[in-house]
Amino acid sequence: MDSFQENAWQRASLEQVLLKMDSMGFDAFVVTDLPSIRWLTGFSGSSARLLLTPGGSWLFTDSRYRLQAAAEVKVAEPVITGEGFVAALRSGRYPLGRCVALQSDRVSWHEASRIIAAVDERCRVVPVDGFFDAFRMVKSPGELLLMQRAADISGQVLDEVIPMISPAMRECDIAAEITCRHRKLGAQKDSFDPIVASGARGAMPHAQPADARFEPGSLIVIDMGCMVDGYASDQTRTVGLGPVCAEAKEVYGIVREAQQLGVCSARCGMRARELDGIVRSFIAGHGYGEAFGHGLGHGIGLEVHEGLHISPKGETVLQEGMVFTIEPGIYLEGKFGVRIEDTVVMEAGRARSLQRYSRELTEL
Amino acid sequence: MDSFQENAWQRASLEQVLLKMDSMGFDAFVVTDLPSIRWLTGFSGSSARLLLTPGGSWLFTDSRYRLQAAAEVKVAEPVITGEGFVAALRSGRYPLGRCVALQSDRVSWHEASRIIAAVDERCRVVPVDGFFDAFRMVKSPGELLLMQRAADISGQVLDEVIPMISPAMRECDIAAEITCRHRKLGAQKDSFDPIVASGARGAMPHAQPADARFEPGSLIVIDMGCMVDGYASDQTRTVGLGPVCAEAKEVYGIVREAQQLGVCSARCGMRARELDGIVRSFIAGHGYGEAFGHGLGHGIGLEVHEGLHISPKGETVLQEGMVFTIEPGIYLEGKFGVRIEDTVVMEAGRARSLQRYSRELTEL
Repeated sequence: MDSFQENAWQRASLEQVLLKMDSMGFDAFVVTDLPSIRWLTGFSGSSARLLLTPGGSWLFTDSRYRLQAAAEVKVAEPVITGEGFVAALRSGRYPLGRCVALQSDRVSWHEASRIIAAVDERCRVVPVDGFFDAFRMVKSPGELLLMQRAADISGQVLDEVIPMISPAMRECDIAAEITCRHRKLGAQKDSFDPIVASGARGAMPHAQPADARFEPGSLIVIDMGCMVDGYASDQTRTVGLGPVCAEAKEVYGIVREAQQLGVCSARCGMRARELDGIVRSFIAGHGYGEAFGHGLGHGIGLEVHEGLHISPKGETVLQEGMVFTIEPGIYLEGKFGVRIEDTVVMEAGRARSLQRYSRELTEL
Repeated sequence: MDSFQENAWQRASLEQVLLKMDSMGFDAFVVTDLPSIRWLTGFSGSSARLLLTPGGSWLFTDSRYRLQAAAEVKVAEPVITGEGFVAALRSGRYPLGRCVALQSDRVSWHEASRIIAAVDERCRVVPVDGFFDAFRMVKSPGELLLMQRAADISGQVLDEVIPMISPAMRECDIAAEITCRHRKLGAQKDSFDPIVASGARGAMPHAQPADARFEPGSLIVIDMGCMVDGYASDQTRTVGLGPVCAEAKEVYGIVREAQQLGVCSARCGMRARELDGIVRSFIAGHGYGEAFGHGLGHGIGLEVHEGLHISPKGETVLQEGMVFTIEPGIYLEGKFGVRIEDTVVMEAGRARSLQRYSRELTEL
């Protein structure tokens, strides 16, 4: 995937966005969230606002990013503002028409008020939520390459750190090794703080790594991912430190089957909640329905959680090119937790996992 | 500092906040930013809203945090909401009075609109910015202990990683080691992504660590910090890989003196801009005024940048117990950069550095 193709994809995406704006009656769109700005323009800096109009688009940033904006942004005109974006809007130099859309879930009340005051006499500002979700859910070939690279790096990190687990190590040591190895293998950073949770702590889906050393016979949940050129990976494996008890083995087997069932059942045209329901029923059928308290998965891309919800309420219809996680879990309070997670892409109508790391129970 | 003393400090802080609310005519305050919620209540979870009123205070969170909220929160009553905070406000169960303040810079336009709609018939919602800044600037003894511990951990990490720098290493390798060692030494995480920038890249104050190997004779800027129980450290050192050129030595010496001048000149009662001016004039007097393009420092605590700005526009008067950075730099585009940064606390009228790591030029 070369930059010529990526630019062509960006231009096509921008055309689609302008068409949707037109159909909703928006003459201009103020984009305030950085991931959507990156998706539309390629700009990777930490400070930007984007103004989209049928007559042209402008990316506003500060002088720190002069060179970077010039190099990265082709589909919009970079503008370096000394006085800031709101002053630029107020100046009247940019065509806003009569109705400007603003991402109400991605802008502070303070900034929204300033923008409204700046353009008040000329046009109406309309709050819009989730406008870019449907676009960003479907990944381009270039985006998929980066997501595969991020998944491969995290897979290699799992290969390296899982054998390090021993009674001499603490959860926070393994978390530190994960973060360190992500960077050394070429990722820019973790996509979220690694979860390394053993024994009863594994029953808390969002446990923070503790000072505690690993106990022989415990199950350890490892949930981690990295960022490569803006794109996230996300995966979970659960391993045993030595032989685990019969109940743990049984629960592991159920989660293992549930996860495989999720990957094999996903079809383009199916609603997200149907896929969630198939896996949820399977787990409930084994008597653990109450112990699976979260959704089956979530969309992922420029953000580790974006757009799609694979949950009992998920109405989105699965489509070719969508990328999301499939991560059933069973959590037995005071005992242990098991979660197995892959990130999958919808390809030729079905889900293909980006992960190659084994899903069988490892007893270290 | 035991938890009894910390609770006493929290109660005293809450009293001060309620007095300020009263003086501004607010009957209730909706706190939406997590650092201020942590400062007020000790709650460290990732999802919360806090309602403050003279008649009582309530911390709203979800079922994931039931045990944690019960253990951590003493000055407010924890409420586990299934339907969310806005529905709780709408219920009429909480006394809002006639005027409710809302942090307009810390709440999305979307949420603000929902809150306004929920209470519209009963009261007025007023936007407020920076309400907690003046309180949070001044640290309690317990907060200072944690900040010293964070500074000590980062100091030990510098001790360990600076000798690792060699032509065989890359910037991203050192960044990975910093992150890894922060966690292993007991910090929960980095307080920001480490900056490791060598040669001409050191002239970009916010450079991301690159794949590039270190060149003999180059200057390397290392800017890093960690989080300990919610509190941040922040420090920068610049080192040479082997002997550096005469110009680099000269610039290093100026920055070294400027930094020392900043630490020695700070006095309680002085405005932040005066302190900035003293250091800025010194650097300008050596002909490098244009090459020092950022403020002298910033407040730090529960956030790595908070409250105070030590800059030409900083009007805040320095007070006992305030904690901020002093970090002059000289950046020569295409050549190199030098920055030296300590975090200081105002104590007995003067600034005391939390860092013990040497500020002299190291040529590895």
